[in-house]
Amino acid sequence: MKSILVHEVGLRDGLQMERQTVPLERKLAWLRTLMDAGVDVIQVGSFVHPTKVPQMADTDQLFRELSQPGVRRPGPLLSGLVLNEKGLDRGLVCGVEMFCMGVSASETHSQKNTGMSIAEATDRIIAIGVRARESGKRVQVSVQSAFGCGYEGEVPPERVLGLVRRFVEAGLTNISLADTAGHATPDQVKVLYTELFRIGDGIECACHFHNTYGLAMANAYAAVQAGVTSVETSIAGLGGCPFTKIAGGNLCTEDFVHYLHQTGQREDIHMKPLIDLAADVAAFLGREMSGMVYRAGPIPETGA
Amino acid sequence: MKSILVHEVGLRDGLQMERQTVPLERKLAWLRTLMDAGVDVIQVGSFVHPTKVPQMADTDQLFRELSQPGVRRPGPLLSGLVLNEKGLDRGLVCGVEMFCMGVSASETHSQKNTGMSIAEATDRIIAIGVRARESGKRVQVSVQSAFGCGYEGEVPPERVLGLVRRFVEAGLTNISLADTAGHATPDQVKVLYTELFRIGDGIECACHFHNTYGLAMANAYAAVQAGVTSVETSIAGLGGCPFTKIAGGNLCTEDFVHYLHQTGQREDIHMKPLIDLAADVAAFLGREMSGMVYRAGPIPETGA
Repeated sequence: MKSILVHEVGLRDGLQMERQTVPLERKLAWLRTLMDAGVDVIQVGSFVHPTKVPQMADTDQLFRELSQPGVRRPGPLLSGLVLNEKGLDRGLVCGVEMFCMGVSASETHSQKNTGMSIAEATDRIIAIGVRARESGKRVQVSVQSAFGCGYEGEVPPERVLGLVRRFVEAGLTNISLADTAGHATPDQVKVLYTELFRIGDGIECACHFHNTYGLAMANAYAAVQAGVTSVETSIAGLGGCPFTKIAGGNLCTEDFVHYLHQTGQREDIHMKPLIDLAADVAAFLGREMSGMVYRAGPIPETGA
Repeated sequence: MKSILVHEVGLRDGLQMERQTVPLERKLAWLRTLMDAGVDVIQVGSFVHPTKVPQMADTDQLFRELSQPGVRRPGPLLSGLVLNEKGLDRGLVCGVEMFCMGVSASETHSQKNTGMSIAEATDRIIAIGVRARESGKRVQVSVQSAFGCGYEGEVPPERVLGLVRRFVEAGLTNISLADTAGHATPDQVKVLYTELFRIGDGIECACHFHNTYGLAMANAYAAVQAGVTSVETSIAGLGGCPFTKIAGGNLCTEDFVHYLHQTGQREDIHMKPLIDLAADVAAFLGREMSGMVYRAGPIPETGA
């Protein structure tokens, strides 16, 4: 059985929808905690225009700070989300180690999110992905609204698989499927990933589930059963997508890591700093978050 | 594939730990809504001593009210939890249709919950179960702390299976496993139920998961995959066990029914009354509940 990687995306997918902007120093402290906790990949932010998502205005600076000698710890890979050529240019100079980018499988979602059709967005993203790879960087391409769309309802699996085929043909074989609207069910997840892996050899898959309807953990479990080896999670369950109608939180990092611990799959990721960080995030945002483990605490030692 | 039954237990397992006692009239209104929504079994309450759990003091009266001509709708079975002979006597005269009862697989939990050893509690419960069955009633026997214990930590699967064997030998083949402390993982759930079904033919299984660590839905999914056909859920996610150290909510009824809808497994249970009821429970208790679907609303119609 392959080891499951944890890709923390809360500081990007979580914070982008918060009204409150998190100051740079606090983001850095949170990032350092995540690095020390031993998650595998950390998404630092996205390269969008600062007027569009002001919460992400400090992404370049965060990468520069983390690249400073004495700050950058060995271990987790630092990822950044790019939406266009300009974002890639910014990311290439500030120290992004893994570029994430995606297209939506829903025409309406694609238009609202990017102003482009799926076809147009796909050509663009493939060009950016190929350029990032040629620059020696890791690349992950994702299909958003892969399991359904808040605007359009059902999304045909064949459309999702068609997009993945395009990516694979372009040599982009690190694929993530995102359940932007939270419509996925574990049954559907299993079927779609199973078909996806049949597209070709050497495909590595990630998953990204929103917990809008309470199914994120069950979906992640099903994805792992189907062969997914990287799971995108968000500290305290932060998140959701501001461009869909209903914004549910993400699969919660410390809850998922707790699961990996309990099953003996990843005992090397430290629970305590994650739990403390989730509590700090909740305190900073001034509300109870959706994560369960930070409220319950870790399972007590036997006989305690 | 067998149809999955929904056994609503919120009014028992949920309300027993609330400080606030819910007035009889409100309980009746909630019960009527659940009956109309079309869940399969509804646990009305437990037959404990009123001084021990005052929230359950009206259980007999609730059953009597619901048995009145014109009130009792055809459809859902009404279940009640009994802990001892006296409870069975009460339940037999007030209209209980399905008797639920259980023993803990953890010595410490058993002692704290019942003042008896596992062995002693098992003999007693089997005697009560057999008597209920001989009275022509349906009986479900459960093993509590079947997946781990808040006091003792790991619970050996062999101990759980040993208890189930005792039940089956006594002709009690409707078995529920309860994750009282919320320690279960989907992987463990799959293995334990698979072994359980090997004990004999004609065994029917239910599951009961607490969401203490965010795994209730994933565990229920795994249980259904393993052949479980009855899932115990709680409206709005009400609940948890007051006799374990950490009290997490139960698997949420409307979230699980949403899952059954989305997968086409049970489109006959009505979502809207369940969502409205969850909102009413949250309003009555004056706090946000753990259920997700009542907050998000049902998935909008395509193109809406």
